[in-house]
Amino acid sequence: MIKKLLIANRGEIAVRIIRACKELGIETVAVFSEADRDALHVQLADEAYCIGPKLSKDSYLNFTNIMSVATLTEVDAIHPGYGFLAENSDFAEICKACNITFVGPSPYAIQKMGTKDVARETMKLAGVPIVPGSDGIIADETQGIEVAEAIGYPVIIKATAGGGGKGIRVARNQEELIKGIRVTQNEAEKAFGNPGVYIEKFIEDFRHVEIQVLADNFGNVIHLGERDCTVQRRLQKLIEETPSPAITPSIREQMGEAAVKAAQAVEYSGAGTIEFIFDKNEETFYFMEMNTRIQVEHPVTEMVTGVDIVKEQINIANNNHLSYKQEDITFEGWSIECRINAEDPYKDFMPSAGQITMYLPPGGFGVRVDSAAYPGYKIPPFYDSMIAKLITYGKTRKEAVERMKRALDEFVVEGVSTTIPFHSRMMEHPVFVEGDFNTKFLEKYPIMNKE
Amino acid sequence: MIKKLLIANRGEIAVRIIRACKELGIETVAVFSEADRDALHVQLADEAYCIGPKLSKDSYLNFTNIMSVATLTEVDAIHPGYGFLAENSDFAEICKACNITFVGPSPYAIQKMGTKDVARETMKLAGVPIVPGSDGIIADETQGIEVAEAIGYPVIIKATAGGGGKGIRVARNQEELIKGIRVTQNEAEKAFGNPGVYIEKFIEDFRHVEIQVLADNFGNVIHLGERDCTVQRRLQKLIEETPSPAITPSIREQMGEAAVKAAQAVEYSGAGTIEFIFDKNEETFYFMEMNTRIQVEHPVTEMVTGVDIVKEQINIANNNHLSYKQEDITFEGWSIECRINAEDPYKDFMPSAGQITMYLPPGGFGVRVDSAAYPGYKIPPFYDSMIAKLITYGKTRKEAVERMKRALDEFVVEGVSTTIPFHSRMMEHPVFVEGDFNTKFLEKYPIMNKE
Repeated sequence: MIKKLLIANRGEIAVRIIRACKELGIETVAVFSEADRDALHVQLADEAYCIGPKLSKDSYLNFTNIMSVATLTEVDAIHPGYGFLAENSDFAEICKACNITFVGPSPYAIQKMGTKDVARETMKLAGVPIVPGSDGIIADETQGIEVAEAIGYPVIIKATAGGGGKGIRVARNQEELIKGIRVTQNEAEKAFGNPGVYIEKFIEDFRHVEIQVLADNFGNVIHLGERDCTVQRRLQKLIEETPSPAITPSIREQMGEAAVKAAQAVEYSGAGTIEFIFDKNEETFYFMEMNTRIQVEHPVTEMVTGVDIVKEQINIANNNHLSYKQEDITFEGWSIECRINAEDPYKDFMPSAGQITMYLPPGGFGVRVDSAAYPGYKIPPFYDSMIAKLITYGKTRKEAVERMKRALDEFVVEGVSTTIPFHSRMMEHPVFVEGDFNTKFLEKYPIMNKE
Repeated sequence: MIKKLLIANRGEIAVRIIRACKELGIETVAVFSEADRDALHVQLADEAYCIGPKLSKDSYLNFTNIMSVATLTEVDAIHPGYGFLAENSDFAEICKACNITFVGPSPYAIQKMGTKDVARETMKLAGVPIVPGSDGIIADETQGIEVAEAIGYPVIIKATAGGGGKGIRVARNQEELIKGIRVTQNEAEKAFGNPGVYIEKFIEDFRHVEIQVLADNFGNVIHLGERDCTVQRRLQKLIEETPSPAITPSIREQMGEAAVKAAQAVEYSGAGTIEFIFDKNEETFYFMEMNTRIQVEHPVTEMVTGVDIVKEQINIANNNHLSYKQEDITFEGWSIECRINAEDPYKDFMPSAGQITMYLPPGGFGVRVDSAAYPGYKIPPFYDSMIAKLITYGKTRKEAVERMKRALDEFVVEGVSTTIPFHSRMMEHPVFVEGDFNTKFLEKYPIMNKE
């Protein structure tokens, strides 16, 4: 039984984990960089220790210092949150070696899902739909042309060692393909020391829909329905919701089944998310990737299912059976999350660090705020810019949207710029309100351009 | 259709009503006393007007000034909140005469339920259980003795014109009864100009359990289950929850039916609450009184049913049918509300007005805060001392209690004393946690006495 837990993270997710621990009667140990001395997670935890200078690589990514605190404070477990060490299989391995429970899946599952090609291959074997494309790395241009003609243009050329938008190129015809293969191979060789590329069908008009899964150490896997994260800016999710306004009950069921299969294929344990490309025109979906950790947008799922996902992570880490069977999971109403970032939406979302001079989160029925901000808090410029997650719940999508609008209206953050005005415009945008859009939404409707 | 609404109230309930209106697209007009110029409801409403000096009788109870603002701003409706004019049938009558919708029941229903004896008689005729006692005012001591012997000692002698704990006396035997009748009659004659007294059985060991009802103008009445408000201090509710940990499904059903009958008996319309004395030893309940308005503790019902009661009040005032049938109402999980007052629990709950220098409400999953406080807010000493309602939701009572405990822990209010430490002790008190107590809880366990 976990009695004392170290949170290897900062910001709202550290606060989220501390809250769950407090409710479960688990003692908490916070760690912080020199820039985070006054952070809320430091104030809320039972104990807190500095683990290094401001830069993440010296503090929140510093294995040695984190493990030293863990050992000294005699914790039973470490929760990595998201980002930082959450999907680092080496870190999970070290925890194991130190006899400290890592709240998350096995190093094996992290690694399998963290490597692009391996994940694609594993999913294919498990019968989870993947985007049509080459069987692994292509041998040469001729094979590339064959694959492209078989699946149809446009296609996407991906470096197997790439990631985060790097080593990717779209080709709309044979000419672009030949050129694209050469350029991507060269780039990949230079950037990653590995010239291998593979080809996939390029789906332009898609929605990002993902499934939350929970799995225990006894082979039980359930899913908690989908989240639609189609509103993105430069691959960053900005607004998430559940249910998805775009999928049918039949797609929901198929996607849920595919997600459970995906988790089973890597003997998954803990909370995880299978992200899918949903092609609305074809009414089909494809595996995109699996996030082997708690996600930023987990609250919307909690709002409609009533399941406390972080508590369930801890329950699983305690080597207990899942608290729920698939048939126990029911979905009620609608939930939306807006990520409130300290960025200036009028200036191309430029980060806006500084001191929050006045802070008053919204309240009332159907409103949840997950944040580590407070009046007087100085936002350090070294980490991500998210300062709050504003989540609303309503009986219908309409009510959740109306509630979000009024909650945004009453949210007071002074001293720094925030994305609140952006979200307010989104909630009034007819296309968003209608619910029929794809990941290109913000390119098509640059909603901050009008006054 | 209501397009513009005046809120004839202040504090958190004014904010609550403004929130509902914003979500419904209704324009709002706030009114405020000179002491409330900087109040949150003034800032959140679309328009705001001063209606007089600090004392309630000159401002929030000032018919003329409120109706002047209503007429000048051309509102369609007035929502009275709770307290102040909420149960004043004359005010409801004046709204009617001015062709402004009063968001509440008819003057007739307010009056019938506002007069103690009339309400008791009306309930008796409607078949709602009332506390055994005399048929109206007793003629003399002899009749008093007859009634007391028939129903059994102890009995309570009540002046028909009394109220709020005045003109009430307990008698445990014939000697005390004779003396009690004389003294109460004399007192009532002097205090109220009406010596009439009646006799009721005195139930010592009881819980306060009430039923929320909703009724439309077409004779449809439904109930939203019970709230248990047994934790009281000097007749002031401090903690409310739903479901009640003390009643059985059978009692719940009977109580719900009795509440619907009670509402029907006065052709009720809007949201109302029937309060019952629940005698746990006898497994019986009796009508106590009906509150013909929204109540402070309405959020716990919203949390377990999903029904937005204030929106439904407005829907009914719009002369629509109820949005729900009885069979649509389901109950999920558990919800608890703690009233956070600006009072010093270490000094016999002495009010503590002044400036809130630091304010940070708790957040996260299952936590709701209804408040009109903000950092820098100066609490005026002229009104009630409640500064926030902290509401938690959990799958079980245990989870709701644990969540309340952690939410209280992280609630920051500096500059004034609050009842947060009192509630924290309550959440850890074994008898409260067990759930088996009556309205004498705080007399029996003076939980602030220990350090």
